[in-house]
Amino acid sequence: FRSSAGRLDGKLREKTLTLDTLNPQVKAVEYAVRGPIVIKAGEIERYLEEGGTKPFSEVIKANIGDAHAMGQKPITFLRQVVALCTFPELMDSPSFPEDAKRRARRILQGCGGHSLGSYSASPGVECIRKDIAAYIEQRDEGVPSDWENIYLTTGASDGIMTILRLLVSGKDSSRTGVMIPIPQYPLYSAAISEMDAVQVNYYLDEDNCWALDINELHRSYQAAKQHCQPRVICIINPGNPTGQVQSKKCIEEVLHFAYEENLFVMSDEVYQDNVYAPDCQFHSFKKVLYEMGPEYFNSVELVSFHSTSKGYTGECGFRGGYMEVINMDPEVKAQLVKLLSVRLCPPLAGQAAMDVIVNPPQPEEHTFKQFHQEKSSVLGALAEKAKLTEKILNAVPGIKCNPVQGAMYAFPRIFIPPKAVEEAKALGMQPDMLYCLRLLEETGICVVPGSGFGQKDGTYHFRMTILPSIEKLKVLLGKVRDFHIGFLKEYSGLE
Amino acid sequence: FRSSAGRLDGKLREKTLTLDTLNPQVKAVEYAVRGPIVIKAGEIERYLEEGGTKPFSEVIKANIGDAHAMGQKPITFLRQVVALCTFPELMDSPSFPEDAKRRARRILQGCGGHSLGSYSASPGVECIRKDIAAYIEQRDEGVPSDWENIYLTTGASDGIMTILRLLVSGKDSSRTGVMIPIPQYPLYSAAISEMDAVQVNYYLDEDNCWALDINELHRSYQAAKQHCQPRVICIINPGNPTGQVQSKKCIEEVLHFAYEENLFVMSDEVYQDNVYAPDCQFHSFKKVLYEMGPEYFNSVELVSFHSTSKGYTGECGFRGGYMEVINMDPEVKAQLVKLLSVRLCPPLAGQAAMDVIVNPPQPEEHTFKQFHQEKSSVLGALAEKAKLTEKILNAVPGIKCNPVQGAMYAFPRIFIPPKAVEEAKALGMQPDMLYCLRLLEETGICVVPGSGFGQKDGTYHFRMTILPSIEKLKVLLGKVRDFHIGFLKEYSGLE
Repeated sequence: FRSSAGRLDGKLREKTLTLDTLNPQVKAVEYAVRGPIVIKAGEIERYLEEGGTKPFSEVIKANIGDAHAMGQKPITFLRQVVALCTFPELMDSPSFPEDAKRRARRILQGCGGHSLGSYSASPGVECIRKDIAAYIEQRDEGVPSDWENIYLTTGASDGIMTILRLLVSGKDSSRTGVMIPIPQYPLYSAAISEMDAVQVNYYLDEDNCWALDINELHRSYQAAKQHCQPRVICIINPGNPTGQVQSKKCIEEVLHFAYEENLFVMSDEVYQDNVYAPDCQFHSFKKVLYEMGPEYFNSVELVSFHSTSKGYTGECGFRGGYMEVINMDPEVKAQLVKLLSVRLCPPLAGQAAMDVIVNPPQPEEHTFKQFHQEKSSVLGALAEKAKLTEKILNAVPGIKCNPVQGAMYAFPRIFIPPKAVEEAKALGMQPDMLYCLRLLEETGICVVPGSGFGQKDGTYHFRMTILPSIEKLKVLLGKVRDFHIGFLKEYSGLE
Repeated sequence: FRSSAGRLDGKLREKTLTLDTLNPQVKAVEYAVRGPIVIKAGEIERYLEEGGTKPFSEVIKANIGDAHAMGQKPITFLRQVVALCTFPELMDSPSFPEDAKRRARRILQGCGGHSLGSYSASPGVECIRKDIAAYIEQRDEGVPSDWENIYLTTGASDGIMTILRLLVSGKDSSRTGVMIPIPQYPLYSAAISEMDAVQVNYYLDEDNCWALDINELHRSYQAAKQHCQPRVICIINPGNPTGQVQSKKCIEEVLHFAYEENLFVMSDEVYQDNVYAPDCQFHSFKKVLYEMGPEYFNSVELVSFHSTSKGYTGECGFRGGYMEVINMDPEVKAQLVKLLSVRLCPPLAGQAAMDVIVNPPQPEEHTFKQFHQEKSSVLGALAEKAKLTEKILNAVPGIKCNPVQGAMYAFPRIFIPPKAVEEAKALGMQPDMLYCLRLLEETGICVVPGSGFGQKDGTYHFRMTILPSIEKLKVLLGKVRDFHIGFLKEYSGLE
């Protein structure tokens, strides 16, 4: 109720926009990666900056997949190309390699007024879309890619939300069900909340390296059909937070399932360049679909996502990404382009960064040597840190960590004693949140509780990144170990 | 109805996502600025590129407020700062001024790992938020601005949609009504469609230079209350497409109205640096609110928007912008930050560009001279083109153009003979769409029909930008004149 009379009588005027009147879908949204524990970590950081004392001298932010923030260096060639695009006067500088200038010229020629400051067409700069298609064809060993199916996006998150927005409709029992892996990257649950869709969980198999089990997909789908209309399945491969790299067989099973049940497939492949385990390999959903034959390849509706934020470039701040759209109804595609046009276009610097990623220095180019060195160094370090993290965590009593086959995270299972579980419940919080808050307060290490990603009832986890420098990571893991042992002691009554 | 059986029997498999199953809110969205006529212009461009012949040699795209695409040059200093941020190795280059290096260093110090490739905090880099607050205080001659009320956005469009998303809720007669000016920039109608809110039109007064009439606001509000819950009023000042710059008195009346009716105010001020008429001045909604006294300044909920895309920098492709949030309920603010966090952060290059705009070279700095020259040149040219456009169009029989007081567009009223109106109706299109299509086909000039922005029934307009070079603009206006005269002849039966 709002009075329409003025309030110059001195009474307190009610605000129009309050928690009560706020869009309820917004209230429902949660995003743990930047949620309460990260806010707390920020408060502690400020406290330390202002001279406060804690049992530690710095907060280690291992909550977010931001490589540069943890000291990873940008790829020189990428920054040279983007700098040339930003300030073309640099084309006259002898300090910039010809390889970079050539690419920058190509990009700028595709821009209005040859400027990064022009809007591009809403799907992105045409020559960049073509470069991406060429990259996909080469990555997938010849599977054809049509540049008109490629859309540049403002990070992968933007593309994922746009596609979900097309798919989600209906009320009550006809509401769109969106199948997502548990554990998942909470962009998906946040989007589902905001769009008032139905979240349909399928549980990854922790005892089997977080593999996707087709029987679990069937179970989940059948159960969901009772109360909603499951229409889309989301897969993250390599996985976030789990780090598992799916086998080709598993991907085939998912695609076959999607074909049988007429599900729209969204494959989040932003970690495709982050595969560490020697016995694992990235298989694109598109390539596997192709190899299943034309009846599948010409019918399953699939959108695959990539980003500039991960891989070996770690360019999160550029907000670059693309999606490739397979077998989308042409009328729906026109609607997609219309929806994209309202936001005009993705940031041009991010589009340029994406172009360099799909069109990097080749062996015959002068810039290849340094590029290859930098790329190998980053990926080698990540692989080393993946292995180290798994090893150290598995040596801690009460922690079990599946192999970090890919991506940028470890998602170890932590044993939380019943006394701690009860204390958490009494405090109205999730047990792994209590754990992570205590870890933060005692060691300064910020990780995200597994409850923020989803997990089987009665199990607890946390997600940490493997991004800190090797030295810092060792320190971090040592502190986690000591904390966990202490935590177990404290709550098992063995004092 | 979807069969759950496989279709390996050779029958055509139905797609999951079709126009029928698509989110109906997406279907409802229209965005004329990149709509059907622009698509047609693109087709003609490709036809010309492939060697086809038309009565003209090039398409002139006067449909979108993209300055660089029409030949405007970037501000050198801005590009220097962003290039330095992108490739900090350039800090060692003597070709870059110290003023630019200082700003770049400041920005990078505010970035994770001192890299533009890190995510920033979701509201934006702290020092940039502070710089924006300082700019606002200086612009508004001392009215205090709190940096914690400033949020960087991915262009203004992103901020506008985010705020609307907070505000829009309810079903049936409790649906949120959003008051928007007619004519309007169709981001607003698109957002309202997509969010299933109710569009509440208030008509600007064409006979009075497109001024806002408070009586019309009252009329519109009272009529809307019958079928929805009007909760927010959007104002664009300087106006798009109208180019009117609102008087201080008018802004006061709007704010008083919002206070009385408990409306949330959204003021789109992206053209605040584009004021040409010597008798006009930009008054920020915030400053006017402040001058109305504490009972208003401490209670009216107001969000003001700015962008890097317009002004004198024209950096559309960077997708930079900010919003300042006044008197927002603190619990709602926390919800806003949560919503922003799902998209992580706005692009860092855009944030850096915004920083330069609010923290440009000062008179005592070496770089001031060239900066001031470039800025004056751009704004002087725009002012000249505004005047020229108004003058030439007003000299055409059957065209009446209000003064282009600000922004980047002319929105002339065009007389369309009844015969043409009938022909358009028979073809199932708006009369001004027919007009603009004919204009495009005969002259290659692409402008946007007034029906895409909204107009009083029975009136017709088109929106053109004043961005082409002065020479091209003269050619364009001459062709429009000749076309219009011919069009009048053709449809008035005087052959």
